Amino acid sequence: MIKPGLPKGTRDFGPDAVRKRQYLFQVIRSCFELFGFEPIETPAMENLSTLLGKYGEEGDKLIFRILNNGNILPLAQQAKDSRELANLLCEKALRYDLTIPFARFVVMNQHQLVFPFRRYQIQPVWRADRPQKGRYREFFQCDADIVGSHSLLNEVELIRLYQLVFSRLSLRVRIRLNHRKLLQALAERCGNPGWMPLITTAIDKLDKVAVQQVEAELQEKGIPEDARSLIREYVTLSGQAGADSLSAVLALLQHHPAAEEGVRDLAFILHQLKDSSSDRAAVQIDFTLARGLDYYTGTILEVQSEEMEMGSLGGGGRYDNLTGLFGLPDIPGVGISFGVERIYDVMEALQRFPASTGLSTQVLWLRMDDALLPEVMHYAMELRQKGIATEIYPDQVKIDKQLKYADRKGIPLVIMMGSREYQRQVVAVKDLRSGTQKDVSLSELSEVILHQLSVR
Amino acid sequence: MIKPGLPKGTRDFGPDAVRKRQYLFQVIRSCFELFGFEPIETPAMENLSTLLGKYGEEGDKLIFRILNNGNILPLAQQAKDSRELANLLCEKALRYDLTIPFARFVVMNQHQLVFPFRRYQIQPVWRADRPQKGRYREFFQCDADIVGSHSLLNEVELIRLYQLVFSRLSLRVRIRLNHRKLLQALAERCGNPGWMPLITTAIDKLDKVAVQQVEAELQEKGIPEDARSLIREYVTLSGQAGADSLSAVLALLQHHPAAEEGVRDLAFILHQLKDSSSDRAAVQIDFTLARGLDYYTGTILEVQSEEMEMGSLGGGGRYDNLTGLFGLPDIPGVGISFGVERIYDVMEALQRFPASTGLSTQVLWLRMDDALLPEVMHYAMELRQKGIATEIYPDQVKIDKQLKYADRKGIPLVIMMGSREYQRQVVAVKDLRSGTQKDVSLSELSEVILHQLSVR
Repeated sequence: MIKPGLPKGTRDFGPDAVRKRQYLFQVIRSCFELFGFEPIETPAMENLSTLLGKYGEEGDKLIFRILNNGNILPLAQQAKDSRELANLLCEKALRYDLTIPFARFVVMNQHQLVFPFRRYQIQPVWRADRPQKGRYREFFQCDADIVGSHSLLNEVELIRLYQLVFSRLSLRVRIRLNHRKLLQALAERCGNPGWMPLITTAIDKLDKVAVQQVEAELQEKGIPEDARSLIREYVTLSGQAGADSLSAVLALLQHHPAAEEGVRDLAFILHQLKDSSSDRAAVQIDFTLARGLDYYTGTILEVQSEEMEMGSLGGGGRYDNLTGLFGLPDIPGVGISFGVERIYDVMEALQRFPASTGLSTQVLWLRMDDALLPEVMHYAMELRQKGIATEIYPDQVKIDKQLKYADRKGIPLVIMMGSREYQRQVVAVKDLRSGTQKDVSLSELSEVILHQLSVR
Repeated sequence: MIKPGLPKGTRDFGPDAVRKRQYLFQVIRSCFELFGFEPIETPAMENLSTLLGKYGEEGDKLIFRILNNGNILPLAQQAKDSRELANLLCEKALRYDLTIPFARFVVMNQHQLVFPFRRYQIQPVWRADRPQKGRYREFFQCDADIVGSHSLLNEVELIRLYQLVFSRLSLRVRIRLNHRKLLQALAERCGNPGWMPLITTAIDKLDKVAVQQVEAELQEKGIPEDARSLIREYVTLSGQAGADSLSAVLALLQHHPAAEEGVRDLAFILHQLKDSSSDRAAVQIDFTLARGLDYYTGTILEVQSEEMEMGSLGGGGRYDNLTGLFGLPDIPGVGISFGVERIYDVMEALQRFPASTGLSTQVLWLRMDDALLPEVMHYAMELRQKGIATEIYPDQVKIDKQLKYADRKGIPLVIMMGSREYQRQVVAVKDLRSGTQKDVSLSELSEVILHQLSVR
C-alpha cells in the first residue's frame, strides 16, 4: 500500500478554504456582472499547437502536456531528443493562462459575438513552475477583457471595476498606471528604440531593489551615461502628483510623438476618474511601471496592497493584436486580471473574510427517540425550507458524543426532542455558544431559530 | 497559420451556457449546504499511482496521463511496450472521478476531520472516452457523501436531498431504490454466489431492452432454467407497490439472511420517508436496479426523469470500504451524485431555466456628449451600486449603431443624456422592449430604473 499523496505544487482545499474562495470569486463575479461583463469557460485541455510559441521559449517548457492514448511506442522510437519526443507523443496540453484560450475563443466565435465583447473568465491554469511559497502548479486566474474597441473609456471602466471589487473586499489598494508609449519614447530619446525591453526590465525592479542597483544593471548592459542620466530623471518624476508629472514627463522626453500620445491617454483617464477619489483604491501615475508581457501596447496598470507587503494583486493593459495570433487581425482590446490566490492570502492575513463565510451547519438535531424519527425528519426539512442549514445526527450514540460532534464542528444550536417534549409539542433548544437551553413550541420553531441565529 | 480548434470531446461555454450552469450548480450547492454538507476541492492532477487500478482494466486506459517535464528520452528508450512507456513517462494524471480523490483526501486528513464527515464536491473530471452525443472528455461531476456512519438515516437524508434539489429545479423525477444484498441473495438462491455480477448486468438492462433479450443473455451465459425462472419472478415483483413487494421478495428468496437484511434496510428507509409523498420525486422500490460500480455493498439508488427519455440524472449507494484502498479500513459511507451535464440537457430541452438566468446587462448608457462623460460615469456607478448591471457604450459612433448593440445583446433599457437633458437634470430612458421613452429626473434615476426592470 503506497501512502497517498499529492503531486508537488498542488493543493487540496478543505471546507473553510473552499468557502472563502467561493466568497472571493462571488464578490468579483458579481462586480463583473454589474459592469456588463459576460462569463465564458474554455476547456482545461487545448490543442498543443494553440499554446506552443505563445509564452516564449521558457513558457513552452512550463506547459503540461497530455500523453496521447493508444499505441505510442512506434512514434516514440522515432524521436531524436526529449523535445521532439514530447511533441510526437502529445497533441494536447493543459491551459497555461486564460488569455490565449480567450483569443482562440474570439476567433472561433467571431461571427456570433457582439462587439465590443466584454468577457470574464474565472478558471484554473497549470504551469510546471518550480513550486515555492505562494507559487503553485495549479492556480486560478480571473480575467476581464473588452475586445473590439479602441476607446479609453474601457480603461476607465476597468479601473472603476478594480475600485469596486477591492472596496467590497475591504482591502485598501493603490492602482499604478503607466503607458507603454512613454517607455517607448524614453528608449528612443535614450538613442535606441531597441533598448526598450532592457530599460523597462531594469526600472521595473525599482519597487524591489535600490536605484543604485538598477543603475549598475543599466551600465553593465551598455547603456551610456547620458542615457542613464535621462532614465534617472524619468524615474524621479514618478514621485510627483498626477497632472504635473504628465507635463514634466512630456518636457523631459522633448515632446516625442509617442510620449504625446501616452500623456494624452493618461490625462483623459485621470480626467474621467476625477470623481472616484476613493481612499480605498487611489490611482497613481507611475512611470516606472513596465509589466512584463510584451503584447501590451498602450495603457498598463497594476494593483498593490496598501496594507501589507505582497506582489501585485492584479494588473493588465491594452493590447492591439491578440487575436492576430490566430489569424484575426485588428481587434484591439484591454483587460485586467485579479491575482485571486494572492488576494486570498492578503485577506486571510488581514482577516478580512466576513465571519459568516466560515459558517456551515447552524442546527444539529440530536438522535434520541427513534419512534419520533419521521417527525424529526419532518421538522428538519421545515427548517431547511426556511434556509436554515440543518443536520440530524445519524448514529445512535450517547448524547455526549453527539454534543461533542456539534462542538467540534462549531454548530451553534442543538435541538432535542424526546417523547415527553413531543407530547407537549415542544423541543429543547440548546445554544452551545452561551450554554443556555429553553423549550420552544414546534409551531414557532423556525422563527425562534432564525432569531436565535441572528443574535450573535 | 493553423485554424484554431478544440480538442475532440471538449467544449467552450459561451455566456448563456455558463450562466445556466452557474444557476444549476448554485441550486445544488445551496441544497447541499442546507443539509450540512461541506465543500472540498481536490487538484485536477493526481499521482498516477493514486488512480491506477481503481477503475478496472478499461478505466485505466481512459485516464489522461500528464507527460513528465524534462529529459524523457533516456527513459523512453527502455520501454518494451506502449503501456510501459506511458508509465515510465508519466507520474501524474487527470482526475477520472471525484470518488477516489475524496477517498485519498479522507485518508490524508483523517486526523483533522470530524466524523461523520459530510462532504460535497463539484468539479470537472476527464476521461479519454470516445466522444459521442452527450458524452464529453471533460465534464463536471457533483457528489455528496457521508463517511464514518453506518446509519440508514443517511440514505433517508440523501433521498430528501434529491427531492429538494429536483423540486427547486422544477423537474419531475422518479427515485429508484434497491439493495445489493437482495441481488446477492438472488444469486445465491440461483445456486451460485459467483453469478451475481452476471445476473445484475443482465437485469440492469431491463429499462433499455426487452425481457426476452435479457432471458437470452442469461441462457447464453449458462444460467440454468430453474434459476432463470426465479430471476423472472424476481424481476416481475418490481411492478408491485412498496411494502407489499418487500414481503413478496422476501418470500421469493426464501428468507435468505442477506435478503432479510436488505428488506429490513429498505423498509426502514421507506418508513422514514412516509412524510415525503412528493409527486415531483416519487420513491420507488425497483429490484432490477443494479448500478454498475462494484464498490457498492448496501442500498443503491438512481434518479430518472419522469418527463423525458434520458439516462439517469443521478445515482449512488452505500459502500463499506472505500478508504481501504488507501490503507484506512472500516470507514463506511454512502453517497449520491448529480448527473449535472444530463440535468442541464433536460432543463434546456424542457425550458426549465428561469428567464432571469439569461439576463446580463440591464442598462446601456449611450455615448453622446463627451463633455458629460465624467457625469455619465458617476451616475453609471450609482446604478451599479444599486445592483443594476450597467454598461457605457465605449466608442464614439452613431446612435443607431449603439442602439443596435443594445438590441443584439438584449439590453432592455437605454439611457441618453445630452447637454439639454443635463441642464434640466434629467435623462431620457428608452425601453427597447416596448419602444417607449420618457424623461427621468437624475435624482430618482435608480428607483425608476429598478421599477422599470421589474415591470416585465
